[in-house]
Amino acid sequence: MDCNIYHGRRIYDLAREIYPICRSITGSGVLQTFEIMNEYIRESGYSIMTASVSSGTEVFDWTVPPEWKITEGFIEDESGKRIIDFHEHNLHIMGYSAPVDKWCSLDELKSCIYTEKSQREVIPYVTSYYKERYGFCMSQDMLDSLTDGRYHMYIDSELFQGNLTYGETVIPGETDQEIFFSTYVCHPSMANDNCSGPALAAELIRYAASVKRKYTYRFIFIPETIGAVTYIHKNLDHMKKHIYAGFNLSCVGDDHDYSIVRSISGDTIADQVLLNVLKTRERYTDYPFIKRASDERQYNAPGVALPVVGFCRSKYGEYPQYHTSADDLDYISAEGFSGSYDVMTRCIEALENDAVYKVTVLCEPQLGKRGGGKLYPTISQKGTYGRAQVLCDILAFSDGRRSLIQISDAIGVPVREMLADIDVLLDCGLLKEADQDKTAGQEDM
Amino acid sequence: MDCNIYHGRRIYDLAREIYPICRSITGSGVLQTFEIMNEYIRESGYSIMTASVSSGTEVFDWTVPPEWKITEGFIEDESGKRIIDFHEHNLHIMGYSAPVDKWCSLDELKSCIYTEKSQREVIPYVTSYYKERYGFCMSQDMLDSLTDGRYHMYIDSELFQGNLTYGETVIPGETDQEIFFSTYVCHPSMANDNCSGPALAAELIRYAASVKRKYTYRFIFIPETIGAVTYIHKNLDHMKKHIYAGFNLSCVGDDHDYSIVRSISGDTIADQVLLNVLKTRERYTDYPFIKRASDERQYNAPGVALPVVGFCRSKYGEYPQYHTSADDLDYISAEGFSGSYDVMTRCIEALENDAVYKVTVLCEPQLGKRGGGKLYPTISQKGTYGRAQVLCDILAFSDGRRSLIQISDAIGVPVREMLADIDVLLDCGLLKEADQDKTAGQEDM
Amino acid sequence: MDCNIYHGRRIYDLAREIYPICRSITGSGVLQTFEIMNEYIRESGYSIMTASVSSGTEVFDWTVPPEWKITEGFIEDESGKRIIDFHEHNLHIMGYSAPVDKWCSLDELKSCIYTEKSQREVIPYVTSYYKERYGFCMSQDMLDSLTDGRYHMYIDSELFQGNLTYGETVIPGETDQEIFFSTYVCHPSMANDNCSGPALAAELIRYAASVKRKYTYRFIFIPETIGAVTYIHKNLDHMKKHIYAGFNLSCVGDDHDYSIVRSISGDTIADQVLLNVLKTRERYTDYPFIKRASDERQYNAPGVALPVVGFCRSKYGEYPQYHTSADDLDYISAEGFSGSYDVMTRCIEALENDAVYKVTVLCEPQLGKRGGGKLYPTISQKGTYGRAQVLCDILAFSDGRRSLIQISDAIGVPVREMLADIDVLLDCGLLKEADQDKTAGQEDM
Repeated sequence: MDCNIYHGRRIYDLAREIYPICRSITGSGVLQTFEIMNEYIRESGYSIMTASVSSGTEVFDWTVPPEWKITEGFIEDESGKRIIDFHEHNLHIMGYSAPVDKWCSLDELKSCIYTEKSQREVIPYVTSYYKERYGFCMSQDMLDSLTDGRYHMYIDSELFQGNLTYGETVIPGETDQEIFFSTYVCHPSMANDNCSGPALAAELIRYAASVKRKYTYRFIFIPETIGAVTYIHKNLDHMKKHIYAGFNLSCVGDDHDYSIVRSISGDTIADQVLLNVLKTRERYTDYPFIKRASDERQYNAPGVALPVVGFCRSKYGEYPQYHTSADDLDYISAEGFSGSYDVMTRCIEALENDAVYKVTVLCEPQLGKRGGGKLYPTISQKGTYGRAQVLCDILAFSDGRRSLIQISDAIGVPVREMLADIDVLLDCGLLKEADQDKTAGQEDM
Repeated sequence: MDCNIYHGRRIYDLAREIYPICRSITGSGVLQTFEIMNEYIRESGYSIMTASVSSGTEVFDWTVPPEWKITEGFIEDESGKRIIDFHEHNLHIMGYSAPVDKWCSLDELKSCIYTEKSQREVIPYVTSYYKERYGFCMSQDMLDSLTDGRYHMYIDSELFQGNLTYGETVIPGETDQEIFFSTYVCHPSMANDNCSGPALAAELIRYAASVKRKYTYRFIFIPETIGAVTYIHKNLDHMKKHIYAGFNLSCVGDDHDYSIVRSISGDTIADQVLLNVLKTRERYTDYPFIKRASDERQYNAPGVALPVVGFCRSKYGEYPQYHTSADDLDYISAEGFSGSYDVMTRCIEALENDAVYKVTVLCEPQLGKRGGGKLYPTISQKGTYGRAQVLCDILAFSDGRRSLIQISDAIGVPVREMLADIDVLLDCGLLKEADQDKTAGQEDM
Repeated sequence: MDCNIYHGRRIYDLAREIYPICRSITGSGVLQTFEIMNEYIRESGYSIMTASVSSGTEVFDWTVPPEWKITEGFIEDESGKRIIDFHEHNLHIMGYSAPVDKWCSLDELKSCIYTEKSQREVIPYVTSYYKERYGFCMSQDMLDSLTDGRYHMYIDSELFQGNLTYGETVIPGETDQEIFFSTYVCHPSMANDNCSGPALAAELIRYAASVKRKYTYRFIFIPETIGAVTYIHKNLDHMKKHIYAGFNLSCVGDDHDYSIVRSISGDTIADQVLLNVLKTRERYTDYPFIKRASDERQYNAPGVALPVVGFCRSKYGEYPQYHTSADDLDYISAEGFSGSYDVMTRCIEALENDAVYKVTVLCEPQLGKRGGGKLYPTISQKGTYGRAQVLCDILAFSDGRRSLIQISDAIGVPVREMLADIDVLLDCGLLKEADQDKTAGQEDM
């Protein structure tokens, strides 16, 4: 997997670059992130195009909120010592905090402070998007160390009629059926959730741009929830008509187990292909839809019902660093990204190469007489079949009804490892695409 | 569960009251039992109505047997000492014994005595309904202690052209679709099998009478097997047309595990709802239909095929006290009945509230803006969702096809705990009944 | 199982008799084998009829190879001492070896010698059917003991335009639907693979000839792969129209676990009946089709797709002696054959007796009044039902849709043990065949 670790390192570097930015569901952080990413994918010839929706726009049951801008934020004590500072860690200021500039008692200060009691040393990630308030976040240890006295709460922020901005990259293929990737870009400085998703998606854009494509590839970069709702509101008809399989990328940078969050029906082509690939890993966790929490929620809602699954390594909410300052650049790694990249490119490869084949002869073909004796041993002794077994298995299951992914599941051989064999069998004329058969008006075998 | 233990105590008291009566498949014991039960349910405004079928009536493959009357029965030795006496325990006389008044040798006596060899201290429950004979039952210990000599076998009983009598209570609901409860009233002094069934049914009559009813409730109290055959013979057309879900109650008074005996198809609405509720218990046993032995046999016979399951705590035949004098008032308890009452009333509640709902908006609704902020936290921090998760899950699965019971199974939340949430979501207008939708002629979402 | 061990001994004796013959996919070994087998089955009134197909005939993707004849083969050293000799063990000469008569160095000799490195003491079974070469097989120990010097390689064999010969026995039944048995006769001196298959088939011919037959029985004895392909090429239409259930017999003589190799769909009537019978064994292994390697490969190929499963004790390829000289007469036994014979005759019995029955009364019938009280105890005491339970179970599941084999699976009673009960219930008029019902134009119950 040398090749993948190369990609893993690239992805890690991109995640590191976008990590410091203070993103939220609106505001300039999103645009700064896209700028860096566009630089990253420039060579692919594609870029992230942005679209904006005004604050106040109604999208289904929701209203696009005001835009949030923050420049400064701190708590200082009477001596002028800064207890916490936004510029030190952007998690110190509650997301969407209203402005404040006020001296207060320790008691009043405490009523505005959020900590994670069970993880004493971390700063929690807290937001208040839809109710205007201000707040500060710090470790429980720091809170406990505060002594009586007067404190200065200061946040220089603005909530104003602006825009919600999202990004989109479309890479056309031979058909208008789409492989869809959604990832969110609304969390401030946390690495796995969520710098990892956009970083992986950027590398997948480079990958998709470089390969022969039957499918069109669509990548969207949206603020979680409100962005997905907004996007669906604008594009539902198109999505229902064109999305063939979709993946919501979240927490894909650590090197623990892999996870699938199934679609609500649990058996869409997206479920099938991701499960097919995850079976090639040592271990993975198969979460039912009930465990959803990212934008697969919206894509699978009643009346939306798109074939979209969630893909993670450690699933959001299931690792202790989640939504705290401990979800930092040490929690993700090139190795972690390398594995996620391998899984996603294998999914793409399996989808691109999926087809229904049909053997062209009755009974098993005589492989030994083909390929200069390299397909099947001319000497028969136990234990000497090797690759011939896979050829025979492909032929045995290619009945004009099973797809390649289904055959891969049935015979326990990864799709990637079947591709060369498929080519050999097509070249020999022993296999043909079942659809070509129909097109040619030939009679069914 | 204070409320349930109150009911458990009431049910236990009723079971204790009917315990001493010598019931059989015909005869006055059944009527005495109904008298006590009618007193018990008097306040409900309903009563058990009796119906009689003459001895000799043909019911499918069976003939209603003669009526049995017994007033006295004993074995005494030459000194006049009574070895056993019907008035001491009615299990001492084999059910349906013919009369006898005869002095005999110990050997002849032994040929008329039944014991349970592997449980030396109990009197077994033995009957001979369809072949005329007489017999006595005692413990193996007692049998072994009998010494040579002459013994007086005496039974004052009668088998005559009388009636088979059964009871029925119908509590009408808004519709003529019925929730059906069947329990048998033909065993003499044994507590779990079978005083427990009629006693629980009596309390369920009081419950059903007290609640708003979409369904009609039918409770029948019959002698096992011949009574069920007779009842079905008279009512099959009505039953096939009206029974929506049915439960055969047997051995529901002990405090061991719960049991379901599935219908023959295994997936009727009765199976579904009882399994749904049993999942809320710590443990239960899921018996396939092959393990049936009570009247679910008749309700599930080919050509009858009603949606009826068996409900027990310790299933008949699976506890050592079964069909012996050890199945006494110590084996059942208020706690045991309390649990059974809870399970059955939850089944009724789930059936009454079962419906197919459909979310009225596309994508997830914004819960935070409703209910004064009490439905969804306005501050987002990990681990703060609680009840909001259930609301979201109900919305996510309410696609106009899944029923409430199916959603409960899918999301692992008991129906009872969903009911308040359903009300909130209906009040908000976020959910509507799928059927109401159709009635109103509105377009599908 | 005294009766089965009698058959087991007969089968073992036949296997021992055909063991020494040098069979291959063509040649006189096959005919010698048939001669012995025909003697064995003479009393049945049936015999193995042979058919021949010329070398060079095209059969689907294959060409029937030249016929092979071998009379002599050895390696001798300069002193004239024979290192190996075909007459000592026919595995010493690679199957289909071309003739050779040449003195050579040890090095050249070694390039023509095949051993099984991980089993130092055995002679491996090696063939080269479709590429002309010569070769010798010996134990690794023997190879290692050879010293430098000149060696004489000698094989007196011929490859000529002859025939491929196979055998077939058809035993007509009431209908032209067939129970099909296929076994191969192309391996030289190895006992389990493959003397065991033809030997068991011979005894099954005697069995099938001796019983009342609804089905026609077809047994074919073919060289593996090329023979199956040839046979299917000649008979595909007939096979598709007539084969109701088929079994490929291979490695049926040892006394280890039983094995089924499923058909590709996994649920044909052949799968169902063999699984039903294997459930009566202490243990068995259920191999999916992906583990196939004998002629079930051909019978299940796309476009062929016959309801044929593989039946083995230790499956080919799964025991260390497989395809070596250690697969000898000590590896198989009368006890092993006895079990295989029992399984196969039970399959035949289940298929012959399989039918769909329907109970003729509504509700349970009153068994007690029938059969002089022997069907159902007239005294009811716990634990006294015994056989009555099976009668009741058959009645409960005989709804005019479930077959006897399906009921056997559902109630966990072997078909054989249900047959007497079915007769009793038919005699009582409580059961009728569902088809007879239709024929008589009677109304459905």
